[in-house]
Amino acid sequence: MKQQPLPRTTRRFFLATGAASLGALATHSTDIPQELGAPRRKYGERSSYETSSRVFRESVTPGTGASRTPLQDLYGIITPSALHFERHHAGVPQIDPTQHELLIHGLVERPLVFTLKDLRRFPSVSHIRFVECAGNTGSDHAGRPGADPQRSHGLVSCSEWTGVPLKTLLDEAGITPKASWLVAEGADASRLARSLPLAKALDDVLVAYGQNGEALRPEQGYPLRLLVPGWEGNVNIKWLGRIQIVDQPYMTHDEAASYTDFMPDGKARAFTFVMEAKSVITRPAGGQRLDGPGFYEITGMAWSGRGKISRVEVSTDEGKSWRDAKLNDPVLPKAVTRFSLPWQWGGEETALQSRCTDDTGYTQPTREELVAVRGLRPGPDGFNHYNGIKTWYVHRDGKVSHE
Amino acid sequence: MKQQPLPRTTRRFFLATGAASLGALATHSTDIPQELGAPRRKYGERSSYETSSRVFRESVTPGTGASRTPLQDLYGIITPSALHFERHHAGVPQIDPTQHELLIHGLVERPLVFTLKDLRRFPSVSHIRFVECAGNTGSDHAGRPGADPQRSHGLVSCSEWTGVPLKTLLDEAGITPKASWLVAEGADASRLARSLPLAKALDDVLVAYGQNGEALRPEQGYPLRLLVPGWEGNVNIKWLGRIQIVDQPYMTHDEAASYTDFMPDGKARAFTFVMEAKSVITRPAGGQRLDGPGFYEITGMAWSGRGKISRVEVSTDEGKSWRDAKLNDPVLPKAVTRFSLPWQWGGEETALQSRCTDDTGYTQPTREELVAVRGLRPGPDGFNHYNGIKTWYVHRDGKVSHE
Repeated sequence: MKQQPLPRTTRRFFLATGAASLGALATHSTDIPQELGAPRRKYGERSSYETSSRVFRESVTPGTGASRTPLQDLYGIITPSALHFERHHAGVPQIDPTQHELLIHGLVERPLVFTLKDLRRFPSVSHIRFVECAGNTGSDHAGRPGADPQRSHGLVSCSEWTGVPLKTLLDEAGITPKASWLVAEGADASRLARSLPLAKALDDVLVAYGQNGEALRPEQGYPLRLLVPGWEGNVNIKWLGRIQIVDQPYMTHDEAASYTDFMPDGKARAFTFVMEAKSVITRPAGGQRLDGPGFYEITGMAWSGRGKISRVEVSTDEGKSWRDAKLNDPVLPKAVTRFSLPWQWGGEETALQSRCTDDTGYTQPTREELVAVRGLRPGPDGFNHYNGIKTWYVHRDGKVSHE
Repeated sequence: MKQQPLPRTTRRFFLATGAASLGALATHSTDIPQELGAPRRKYGERSSYETSSRVFRESVTPGTGASRTPLQDLYGIITPSALHFERHHAGVPQIDPTQHELLIHGLVERPLVFTLKDLRRFPSVSHIRFVECAGNTGSDHAGRPGADPQRSHGLVSCSEWTGVPLKTLLDEAGITPKASWLVAEGADASRLARSLPLAKALDDVLVAYGQNGEALRPEQGYPLRLLVPGWEGNVNIKWLGRIQIVDQPYMTHDEAASYTDFMPDGKARAFTFVMEAKSVITRPAGGQRLDGPGFYEITGMAWSGRGKISRVEVSTDEGKSWRDAKLNDPVLPKAVTRFSLPWQWGGEETALQSRCTDDTGYTQPTREELVAVRGLRPGPDGFNHYNGIKTWYVHRDGKVSHE
């Protein structure tokens, strides 16, 4: 192999960062073990030094509620399955996959029952897609932002999902002319059910059994879930047991009593399905501390339920000016996109913000723009479908905070 | 939302497959639990019903040797970190990341020592890339093929890796004019070391600390490894502790006594770094059984150390004819690509094969073509860098086997 031209050595981060010490063998302290290490394992685990965790509030019914992904600790675009956010309405059922079935019935030519083994016979596809709870960042809307990325934005995760296009299964059953919606129901104790328009079902919805290369995790619907790309998490029915083809939405508990957006005039927006474009800086961010002036990489996540992220801009001066961040390949539709921007901190008090634009041309709004349209509502949780620009405040002592 | 035109119901897989039973509520047996399910967890685990595992031969030194990824169970392109193949030469060291350091020295303007915290200050990138042991599929070369995809091809895995481009760190240290190679050394008990030409180091090599969104797993080099995209696994030094910049390859144990390819004339090919294009059908495949004639999806994995997979052809008639398989998006360079092809099995005895082509125009060869050039060598393990077309034999009783 030919020798490469020597690299320029002009852009030395360590001069700016203090990262790396000038030194030689004398200062190199890594201990090399003198004995054989641990043996091979059938199924690996993370290092005992790693402690990144989902966080959740304790509850008298521990199966209900949500847990949040530690976004500040994530790299790239894949969320480790063990850290995917949770939102359960009656806990996680333990389902024997050999006993589980999916029924498709209603306005069809022939009702059908599929076992897992049946479903794996059909042509399958795999897609990297985000899932986000409609309630994510609601506390930012309410003016009570979470103290760190996990607590403010941690109800979003991104996985490679594998399954059968729902269209394939509906073609098998034969949709009859009056059909226009479906109701999907989970096999958990709450039988969580949601109505979906057939147009979406026939577009890109999956009946998914795979997550990040292996079977779904129990908390994400094992052994079967709906994956409804770009739409609010609640319609991505977990532990999927039944799909009824119908001629109207059924106004189930979770689309009538909740998962509707109230407007200032007291009326409710029914069926706000799409998760609009959103972004958040995850490092440096609330709960972290800068080690003095110098070079930092700003990095974060952006996603849109309408398609691909086409641009992320970052401001390091409280919104006065904006620079384009680099988007890390691959940039995929309805998936998390990782962005980054080099930043030189001079030690001043400032604020960091990101705003993303998707390939429909839509740009993430400010909180003020959203409040002007949707108002505020008393209570700690704010509204669903809040996607305002997030601000992290950098203090002179290096502390980064949410206020 | 407007109603979608009704789907055509002409291509009904269940008529061909027997998958799915005609039925209604009466035959739908899924048990809905009547009580709250399991609570939320800080760090999730897979279902207790899932048993897919790495396989390995027992050894008197259990830390040495390899374990193989269950390719037949994988979906999509991401290998779950818990199932990533292993190849250790002195077991898995348990490293405290706060004590670990990377030394860069030798022909540099200034030797430097980096802690993990230092490294995370530098601009980072994330890439989905495969890692494959040079010895993968050697037993196929030797004419003793593994009985299933795991045992024949299971020394390849694919992850999203995150880290600092090695070029960035070398720019910090300042490479001096005589430098042309480097030696990278692991902090395991074997101090596994390999020489790499600087041209590759300055191209796309990463000093990686992230794998599939979280820290590297211990078996993949926690807390730090080299990621040398497309090159044989052995040079992707795990538990990376030291990089010495030098003016020639150092002919370490693992590039002199092993990891060289012997040719029929008794000479050895030194430094066969690149993993050439390879593919394998993972379902249906050896160790599996077809449930009678009907529809099956053929699916598998293809990858090339030179770039993107541009084409995968599949034969279902022992190589007499070939059809183009569908490549599942995203198709990424030096990453696993998932392919699939619909197949109607009539119950006849036949053989299934795949052959891939990469974007350099190179097409995976047959075993015969490879043996003609490289010969055979006594012993059970065959040669490194074998990438011949894989054949699975389908028998009348539905059994699929490797012979």
